[in-house]
Amino acid sequence: MIVIMERRATEEQIQQVVARIEELGFRAHLSRGEERTIIGIIGDERPLSVEALEVLDGVERVVPVLHPFKLASRDFKPENTIVTVDGVRIGGDEIVVIAGPCAVESREQIFEVAAAVKEAGAKMLRGGAFKPRTSPYTFQGLGIPALELLAEVRETFGLPVVSEVMAAADIETMRAHVDMLQIGARNMQNYSLLQDVGKAAMPVLLKRGMMCTIHEWLMSAEYILSNRNYDVVLCERGIRTFETATRNTLDINAVPVAKQLTHLPVIVDPSHATGKANLVAAAAKAAIAAGADGLIIEVHPNPDRALSDGAQSLRPEAFAKLMTELRQIAHAVGRRL
Amino acid sequence: MIVIMERRATEEQIQQVVARIEELGFRAHLSRGEERTIIGIIGDERPLSVEALEVLDGVERVVPVLHPFKLASRDFKPENTIVTVDGVRIGGDEIVVIAGPCAVESREQIFEVAAAVKEAGAKMLRGGAFKPRTSPYTFQGLGIPALELLAEVRETFGLPVVSEVMAAADIETMRAHVDMLQIGARNMQNYSLLQDVGKAAMPVLLKRGMMCTIHEWLMSAEYILSNRNYDVVLCERGIRTFETATRNTLDINAVPVAKQLTHLPVIVDPSHATGKANLVAAAAKAAIAAGADGLIIEVHPNPDRALSDGAQSLRPEAFAKLMTELRQIAHAVGRRL
Amino acid sequence: MIVIMERRATEEQIQQVVARIEELGFRAHLSRGEERTIIGIIGDERPLSVEALEVLDGVERVVPVLHPFKLASRDFKPENTIVTVDGVRIGGDEIVVIAGPCAVESREQIFEVAAAVKEAGAKMLRGGAFKPRTSPYTFQGLGIPALELLAEVRETFGLPVVSEVMAAADIETMRAHVDMLQIGARNMQNYSLLQDVGKAAMPVLLKRGMMCTIHEWLMSAEYILSNRNYDVVLCERGIRTFETATRNTLDINAVPVAKQLTHLPVIVDPSHATGKANLVAAAAKAAIAAGADGLIIEVHPNPDRALSDGAQSLRPEAFAKLMTELRQIAHAVGRRL
Amino acid sequence: MIVIMERRATEEQIQQVVARIEELGFRAHLSRGEERTIIGIIGDERPLSVEALEVLDGVERVVPVLHPFKLASRDFKPENTIVTVDGVRIGGDEIVVIAGPCAVESREQIFEVAAAVKEAGAKMLRGGAFKPRTSPYTFQGLGIPALELLAEVRETFGLPVVSEVMAAADIETMRAHVDMLQIGARNMQNYSLLQDVGKAAMPVLLKRGMMCTIHEWLMSAEYILSNRNYDVVLCERGIRTFETATRNTLDINAVPVAKQLTHLPVIVDPSHATGKANLVAAAAKAAIAAGADGLIIEVHPNPDRALSDGAQSLRPEAFAKLMTELRQIAHAVGRRL
Repeated sequence: MIVIMERRATEEQIQQVVARIEELGFRAHLSRGEERTIIGIIGDERPLSVEALEVLDGVERVVPVLHPFKLASRDFKPENTIVTVDGVRIGGDEIVVIAGPCAVESREQIFEVAAAVKEAGAKMLRGGAFKPRTSPYTFQGLGIPALELLAEVRETFGLPVVSEVMAAADIETMRAHVDMLQIGARNMQNYSLLQDVGKAAMPVLLKRGMMCTIHEWLMSAEYILSNRNYDVVLCERGIRTFETATRNTLDINAVPVAKQLTHLPVIVDPSHATGKANLVAAAAKAAIAAGADGLIIEVHPNPDRALSDGAQSLRPEAFAKLMTELRQIAHAVGRRL
Repeated sequence: MIVIMERRATEEQIQQVVARIEELGFRAHLSRGEERTIIGIIGDERPLSVEALEVLDGVERVVPVLHPFKLASRDFKPENTIVTVDGVRIGGDEIVVIAGPCAVESREQIFEVAAAVKEAGAKMLRGGAFKPRTSPYTFQGLGIPALELLAEVRETFGLPVVSEVMAAADIETMRAHVDMLQIGARNMQNYSLLQDVGKAAMPVLLKRGMMCTIHEWLMSAEYILSNRNYDVVLCERGIRTFETATRNTLDINAVPVAKQLTHLPVIVDPSHATGKANLVAAAAKAAIAAGADGLIIEVHPNPDRALSDGAQSLRPEAFAKLMTELRQIAHAVGRRL
Repeated sequence: MIVIMERRATEEQIQQVVARIEELGFRAHLSRGEERTIIGIIGDERPLSVEALEVLDGVERVVPVLHPFKLASRDFKPENTIVTVDGVRIGGDEIVVIAGPCAVESREQIFEVAAAVKEAGAKMLRGGAFKPRTSPYTFQGLGIPALELLAEVRETFGLPVVSEVMAAADIETMRAHVDMLQIGARNMQNYSLLQDVGKAAMPVLLKRGMMCTIHEWLMSAEYILSNRNYDVVLCERGIRTFETATRNTLDINAVPVAKQLTHLPVIVDPSHATGKANLVAAAAKAAIAAGADGLIIEVHPNPDRALSDGAQSLRPEAFAKLMTELRQIAHAVGRRL
Repeated sequence: MIVIMERRATEEQIQQVVARIEELGFRAHLSRGEERTIIGIIGDERPLSVEALEVLDGVERVVPVLHPFKLASRDFKPENTIVTVDGVRIGGDEIVVIAGPCAVESREQIFEVAAAVKEAGAKMLRGGAFKPRTSPYTFQGLGIPALELLAEVRETFGLPVVSEVMAAADIETMRAHVDMLQIGARNMQNYSLLQDVGKAAMPVLLKRGMMCTIHEWLMSAEYILSNRNYDVVLCERGIRTFETATRNTLDINAVPVAKQLTHLPVIVDPSHATGKANLVAAAAKAAIAAGADGLIIEVHPNPDRALSDGAQSLRPEAFAKLMTELRQIAHAVGRRL
């Protein structure tokens, strides 16, 4: 860390900062400029918070030097991590498309979607059993019966399944039925749940919070990794901005930025990132062109009747057409799909 | 809800929307303009989601008419709700100040703060036992020993205590030691936890998520209220914007807006909303002037040594001086403190 | 427009709204729901502002139905507009890449860049003569000598030139030296300047303001179009969000959204949208994959020595390599480059 | 400035950065940590841009140490500046309220408002002659006839007048009719206009752009000050965020932050910052409580008929009532009104 002192900081204040740094077990390094004195901290600053020094008299600002994440960092592990979910490898040359309905609604629905997306080339199935809904008065997911249907459909089609976990109490039940746990955007900073999925020893799909920076997203991954669960896939799903023409703003820059900072695979959710079925194809193609390792796309046999997220779900035919287009893009960037 | 059809929508598409509305149990009301046809939905639209109709062919946009929250709404209950926490009334004429450290760090620390803030006029004590920290490598709170200290200090000073709950599994332990459960900003949309505190039958302090709208905040309150827990106090604590000069941006407009929309008490956290001790007084005074029912302020006997949030904590002397100033403002807006 | 009355609006208030609508020359259409009354306005609402009705007693909210832009709308002109700049067609099947330095710095620099980008396949040259800089103490552009160099380089290489206009007083001088006027992001809502470039009868490159919605961007285009200048190319260049890892956040969704709403060509500036040379390629590829009609890219022979925007400028070799990659993507989406 | 090198930066890259710093006329100061090397720059860094060094190989990040503004800074001039507008002193103990309609609409209207706001205690009059409107199809202001009415009303009531300038060509005409030039939010980074009002030698009211940081706002003030016009009053008028319940989000923190950073007076516009008449009083009181030096408030004799901004305009009676309440708040913070 670097401590920038106020212009009017006294020699005594400077010495107090140095003393505090040394008391905390670090070495201090002074640099006196014409207008300001700067104090560098030598040592692994990660356990130290910016505030611990910003609070001292005469300090104007404290700037971290190291990335706060360690296990998630490319500095720590330069080569790409490949996360394997029941045989499907995410993070390699092949682009992995996960598809399925927002929520499991019925046996017919989930079987119909699974057949269609498998046929079109999807490698994994998504489907919600527990749904985080803004309103307590709308459909909250079928719960355990949905998990049972997912396990059944997985058996039938050989597609590994990812589903969102909303509470620690559900983890063991989910383990019996699905292959990968999704942490939803609203729970990205639910540190209690992150610790629990960290201990679960199952692959995790970690969605970026709609209000969270890329650094915070990697810190949430660090919570999971530091519990010795290294099978984390990051998912950009759009952030909240002032723009209201789309449900969220796809932060396409986040794909190359995250790929530079971390060795973990990065996929994109073009359905939530746009909120409109007629924008999904453009966003999906952009994601692959920008270097994403995969996509998670909402598909519903009858979006008009979907109990949630119908407006952003593709019909199976539209999904199949998109897969064909995505293959072209994947090829253009030297990858397979 | 109002369905706005595309300019080029066909008569058949219009009739399909009408049919779908009626199938869902509502009545439809057509209005044909020069450039667009508008279809109004007659009935209680709350269980209906915008997407359910936006997905239909020929629909451009769907606009909700009713507020999605019901129990939290002033339409539902026009008079102010007063939440009583062990005898302290929040939401009445008297402005309630809650003060204390970010985290309970030691017996000495919490006793010293409690004595000081009580002396200065605070009516409740805050203190974290479980801390949501961005990094897994920084101080996470003392946990249960902190709760025990809070119970002890409450006994000694007669100050009701609020502390943050991060996991459903902790609720019963917390009930034995504290008087009010805080839902932190990062958990505002942790619907599973909201359901659980809803069932806990204890007063809840619901912080606004840093990138959640006022409507979403009230919807999270609705999750608690709809579980028959009506003792909810809302807390504005700053939102995330592009401005980086402060930790968060205090949305002072949210105070009068929330007071108009809901009957629940609204308080402000000037410590998190600014992130800097030297801005807390200005923000606290603004909050009372804007109509807030109370404040929650971080106070630490020795911010230089605080294990978390030191930079935004007031020293006891500064807090006592602020309380004197706040009394003037409270008086100026016709209230007491 | 649709006027949503408050739940408690009286019959008298409803009648006053109807009377006001009729007084303004429109017809009113009432729809009485269980909880609210809705009043639709029949007629071309564009000259009417939402506020004119929101101000009336008993009104809760007013929702516009029509897009506020008319000439820029695809409803008005369904087929794509092709803007021709001295023979270069923007908006057709061929993707147009504009490249060059942030600012013209010297004869050597601009000639070297022009030769290199032409060789790599760029169809137009960019180069700033007047630079909008946050600080009055940094390089503000060479001014008229830069325009003269641009005219000379255009002559030599046959590349049409675009350059930013910052003041109405400069328009005539610029007309003599460049082929297209750029309105920068900071001037997107400088309506006085928009009117002036509208009257200038020259092609205009209209950058999106960093905190302007897509609708506002199209309204700024409407200012130019309504002065009978129809040669407007829109340019998405990143918006301002809470994310600080990149200079701006490329709103990739804006490309398909704008293409749906308007017939005008839409290009992307991956240099400003990322702010870092090592992110430009990913953003540029994403833009083409998402359907952009072109790109404007900063290229500098020696970014280390650039007087502005060096960090986001590509070296000529990197630009040439990117052009090769972009051709693959263009081909994958059925276009040429 | 401080240059943070990448973890893997080579000794050669480090030496190249040092060489470049020295070539630019500064001294470099190395600090080698365990994981990173940091290079401090000794000297007045203001003419240097971050990018000039960020572009070098092996550099991860460059952090500015000094504020980029100089003349506007409290480091440069510690005591408060008082701006005098035709005898009215802004920035002293007395809080100055400027009031009037969004736009001058007629002789009757502006005389009626002027009489009412003067009677209620306003010290200056506002009124737009040239209006920046999002749509080219809505009322754009009366122009020069409005300026003539303002000059007349100023004569009659002895109220100095502020009005927005949108184009350099209008400055001389405005000088003859009004006392203070307003730079609107949309033109805050119209550097060409800032230079021109800097040379105009008239007091300037500089509104913060809705998308601009506090630092950028002060840099725009610096443009005016560096042209030797020191009579600049800053005006916070709300920023754009994700919240849609209000027209803008009043950044109340900006008041104490700006007062700490600069010696210039800071006032608040609660009308634009909220967009709704029924929120103006709360925002105005908060502004005074937070330390603002004044307010600028929209007042219209008949908001229902206002040609612009009716929804956020107070009626004269509501304004008079608010002034009485504001006097209490001013008194509570030790000031007069």
